[in-house]
Amino acid sequence: MTQSTETTSYKDIKQTVLGRIRSGEWRPDTLLPNEEDLAVEFSCTRTTVNRALRELAEEGFLERRRKAGTRVSSAPQRQARFTIPLVRDEVEAMGGTYRYALVSALAETAPEWLAARLALTPGQRVVHVRCMHYSDNTPFQFEDRWIVIDSVPQVEQADFSAIGPNEWLVQTVPFTNVELSFLASRADATLAGFLDVTEGEPVFTAERITWLQGQPVTLAKMYFAAGYRMTTRL
Amino acid sequence: MTQSTETTSYKDIKQTVLGRIRSGEWRPDTLLPNEEDLAVEFSCTRTTVNRALRELAEEGFLERRRKAGTRVSSAPQRQARFTIPLVRDEVEAMGGTYRYALVSALAETAPEWLAARLALTPGQRVVHVRCMHYSDNTPFQFEDRWIVIDSVPQVEQADFSAIGPNEWLVQTVPFTNVELSFLASRADATLAGFLDVTEGEPVFTAERITWLQGQPVTLAKMYFAAGYRMTTRL
Repeated sequence: MTQSTETTSYKDIKQTVLGRIRSGEWRPDTLLPNEEDLAVEFSCTRTTVNRALRELAEEGFLERRRKAGTRVSSAPQRQARFTIPLVRDEVEAMGGTYRYALVSALAETAPEWLAARLALTPGQRVVHVRCMHYSDNTPFQFEDRWIVIDSVPQVEQADFSAIGPNEWLVQTVPFTNVELSFLASRADATLAGFLDVTEGEPVFTAERITWLQGQPVTLAKMYFAAGYRMTTRL
Repeated sequence: MTQSTETTSYKDIKQTVLGRIRSGEWRPDTLLPNEEDLAVEFSCTRTTVNRALRELAEEGFLERRRKAGTRVSSAPQRQARFTIPLVRDEVEAMGGTYRYALVSALAETAPEWLAARLALTPGQRVVHVRCMHYSDNTPFQFEDRWIVIDSVPQVEQADFSAIGPNEWLVQTVPFTNVELSFLASRADATLAGFLDVTEGEPVFTAERITWLQGQPVTLAKMYFAAGYRMTTRL
């Protein structure tokens, strides 16, 4: 391995490979040389070739199959990536001063729709937290969240007037599986009040369900203020 | 290199590393052993260790710095990935029969808001295409798109009654930079008609701008039918 002296970076290799695809030297469905041969050609390690090809595959330019090798994609599929920050970090990254406000936190029997949605046993209890996130006292996000008590028994002692339920969960059960959806919903009277929009206005909404080793932990609906956009470059 | 005989996969290594983080053996901010030492410990190649650590970093569990090595994240940040398929593939993946319908395609001077948005020279011309995408004849998406003629002169000869503008662009200028946003918008009378929703209803909207080597190529607004959600697991 000549790791310490190599001068070809994986970015150089990505550019070279993309250039060959663009120029038509490597047409769609062309089988690429194997990684060892490319490492020799580019005078670099196989690790470097591997990283370049894997990123090009993630970006949709190549298709990699375990035994069949790496081919040029015929129909490039693009992957969009969004970093999901804590709302505090999102507000501060835009230069705002973050403020959190608890609206309500109540232990209750899971409502029927939630029990069905999370596959809870009838009668299982949840803590229902509603809270607001502000940027410079301007409404940024209204959060409506249910936390399953059997999955996180400590939640009954949590003080959500001092810390938001998402930050509390990240500290308490950081390693979860997440299902995340984006959708457009409609401001009802309550939401319109909290977000300071007209009733009936479209509201960009993110919905998250998280599980800890198969147990449902929480469902959260996050409603963003007017004009919010989730943007990425790819 | 013992690549062909190794039995420890990068997935095994990911599980082992996650286990050490979960158990508290490796606390937040702990510096991990270097990749060479981990490769020896796990009896695998450095490529395999590298892949495992990189994926764990992409998933937010580790932080990697060029010179400072790899540490356990103190505040795990999650990345959501969405594959952005062609609308035809999205409809077919749900078992629907895809149908495309052109609504209108007109060459015109770029409207002021578009010229400003894409940094066009005043008077630059665009082809404005409006079209519908159906799943089993049910409205799926209304697409409102502008293509900059100077960036893609062939667009004046394109027949958008036969092929959708997105498929045409992917074939014609496949390698572009993309900015993608998700937002909630409101159905005006026209959109309500095409999507078969009530005027004023919230509509999940994706907006894409693409550039080819710095030249603006197209801006597209894609309005999805009622109930659409964009979902991913992370």
